[in-house]
Amino acid sequence: MTFPVVGMVGGGQLARMTHEAGIPLGLKFKLLSDTPQDSAAQVVSEVVIGDYRDLDTLRAFARGCDVITFDHEHVPTEHLRALEADGIPVRPGPDALVHAQDKGVMRARLLEIGAPCPRHRIVSDPADAAAFAEEVGGFPVILKTVRGGYDGKGVWVVRSEADAADPFRAGVPVLAEEKVDFVRELAANIVRSPHGQAVAYPVVESIQVDGVCDTVIAPAPDLSEELAGEAQQLALRIAAELDVVGHLAVELFETRSADGTPGILVNELAMRPHNSGHWTQDGAITSQFANHVRAVLDLPLGDPRPRAPWTVMCNVLGGDYPDMYQGYLHCMAHDPQLKIHMYGKDVKPGRKVGHVNTYGDDLADVRERARHAADYLRGTITE
Amino acid sequence: MTFPVVGMVGGGQLARMTHEAGIPLGLKFKLLSDTPQDSAAQVVSEVVIGDYRDLDTLRAFARGCDVITFDHEHVPTEHLRALEADGIPVRPGPDALVHAQDKGVMRARLLEIGAPCPRHRIVSDPADAAAFAEEVGGFPVILKTVRGGYDGKGVWVVRSEADAADPFRAGVPVLAEEKVDFVRELAANIVRSPHGQAVAYPVVESIQVDGVCDTVIAPAPDLSEELAGEAQQLALRIAAELDVVGHLAVELFETRSADGTPGILVNELAMRPHNSGHWTQDGAITSQFANHVRAVLDLPLGDPRPRAPWTVMCNVLGGDYPDMYQGYLHCMAHDPQLKIHMYGKDVKPGRKVGHVNTYGDDLADVRERARHAADYLRGTITE
Repeated sequence: MTFPVVGMVGGGQLARMTHEAGIPLGLKFKLLSDTPQDSAAQVVSEVVIGDYRDLDTLRAFARGCDVITFDHEHVPTEHLRALEADGIPVRPGPDALVHAQDKGVMRARLLEIGAPCPRHRIVSDPADAAAFAEEVGGFPVILKTVRGGYDGKGVWVVRSEADAADPFRAGVPVLAEEKVDFVRELAANIVRSPHGQAVAYPVVESIQVDGVCDTVIAPAPDLSEELAGEAQQLALRIAAELDVVGHLAVELFETRSADGTPGILVNELAMRPHNSGHWTQDGAITSQFANHVRAVLDLPLGDPRPRAPWTVMCNVLGGDYPDMYQGYLHCMAHDPQLKIHMYGKDVKPGRKVGHVNTYGDDLADVRERARHAADYLRGTITE
Repeated sequence: MTFPVVGMVGGGQLARMTHEAGIPLGLKFKLLSDTPQDSAAQVVSEVVIGDYRDLDTLRAFARGCDVITFDHEHVPTEHLRALEADGIPVRPGPDALVHAQDKGVMRARLLEIGAPCPRHRIVSDPADAAAFAEEVGGFPVILKTVRGGYDGKGVWVVRSEADAADPFRAGVPVLAEEKVDFVRELAANIVRSPHGQAVAYPVVESIQVDGVCDTVIAPAPDLSEELAGEAQQLALRIAAELDVVGHLAVELFETRSADGTPGILVNELAMRPHNSGHWTQDGAITSQFANHVRAVLDLPLGDPRPRAPWTVMCNVLGGDYPDMYQGYLHCMAHDPQLKIHMYGKDVKPGRKVGHVNTYGDDLADVRERARHAADYLRGTITE
């Protein structure tokens, strides 16, 4: 059979779950991983251990792959262009991916296509940051390094000029953004294929704790059909304008104007399967992982609709107990409907080591079950 | 983390799909496979290539595994006893598994526990088979070699004494059974753990073509609650009496007595994930594969209830076209809700190379969608 070979760069949990989704599709999966202990390397047959920052390693890995896709956004743009020049399809391509790699490029392009964004500009030093704060109504403002951040890293809430020194220390350009007074955070997740087919998942609510995703509720409760549609349309438009291929997560702020009118602003873009889409594994007809793989291979996309009225995902973070097996056993006994997803990672405090999904008709119950399991696994509660 | 290592003997599609189900559970999976090209060997990280009939190979493989389980029933019973003597949990254990390995042992034991069976006895030669036929009302009768058969192999429908020579040629004891005038075939699938917890899946209808499973409908249409309950109770009782651990498929004939009373007779037992349970991957809260793994590790079992009113599975058999990729593409475009499961196997006429699952509210529609996809993939239809 001429079933294609998918080359996945990065051995984290997103690669692990993409491999899981690719098994029933009959695909061959090749992994470029930092170490043999990485989450995905534990479960994939064909693993190359190597550094994705090294072009020769990437080139050797890409040989024999029908497409290259990613577990993270950190592969240097120029390396991706070199792979493309070698004739290897890279999806998403470097021209799209740069918008998820560089927050400065992303904001400039979103402005160009009229996507609603917080006020922002690149600032050169703490004094310039203070000037920006003045322009948007005063401190606090958000400073972000344009490259290299994730899960709250590389992001500072700055309350004064004196407070603004840290972000400039990395020697990376710094983007200043107004601190949006948002009602809540949403995510509009879509998948787009090279021939332009696209599917939109229901818009979800994403609850962050200390800058890290904690809970995702699908669909976002009490979101008007109008605003949900607007968010989905925006995500589809961004994907088309930026020529994104694969899964695109558009992280959004939901806002209220002075007169109470709801609105949305784009917070971040991610061009890969995303934490805000993990609920789809058990809650949607086709998961984000299956659709990402289908998209990068230009296969027809699967139905993104939900299978239950409510699905809730809670991340399992490492706590004080290095061994989660007893908690895992308890959770299975406590809730036979619970869907546990462990990543095979060693427990370290605050590290994402898994997530749980629950679904059903009653949101309060579904949410409580996911919360209980995540807290029990972490060791925050013991009953 | 002290997550356990599951040792799977056999590299077929059942092992492949069990690995897939084990990934979210965070388990470590080790595979003993005949060749690196086997279905499961393509997708598992830790693969040992070796012969399961060789005790030294099995012993070396079992070292470091927390439990040994199976993709097939062909490991010699004495080897399993040797592994147990080495202190390796073997699940299902040899004393249970022998009933799925030897149809003579199975029938004798089922009779002992009062499970309804077709009339049967071991026959010594064609004349003895003719004598058995006389006892049960004449030819045709069924002859089966007690070991080594599957998918219609090792089973003969015999119409005369002259016709009865073949089954005796293998030098394996031959079991004669009356040819049951059944209404249809059912399967009662249950999962049981060492501490005795058990869950029962809905009873399904299984439609065979040329002795090979073709379609499974979950739940079996128009099956009375009473007979469904009877079938589930029977499967649970067999599992408890035989001390089965893991997934048990009880293949059944549904019969009608002269006065129209429905009944069931046990046809076959399988102690592993089974083709009649593939629908659970997309149609049940917990799949047979996930529950099999949970059972062999003595973890609490997952909810076996269906997620949709109807789920239909159709097997994809190899046809005249060696390359299914075009058909696969067509099926995805035709039905975005279709769940395709390919095994990574080369296409050979009549070989099981995958299956499809469909689910929904309208049985006729669900069935038609699965049928269309399976026929299209095989190449029987081209529109």
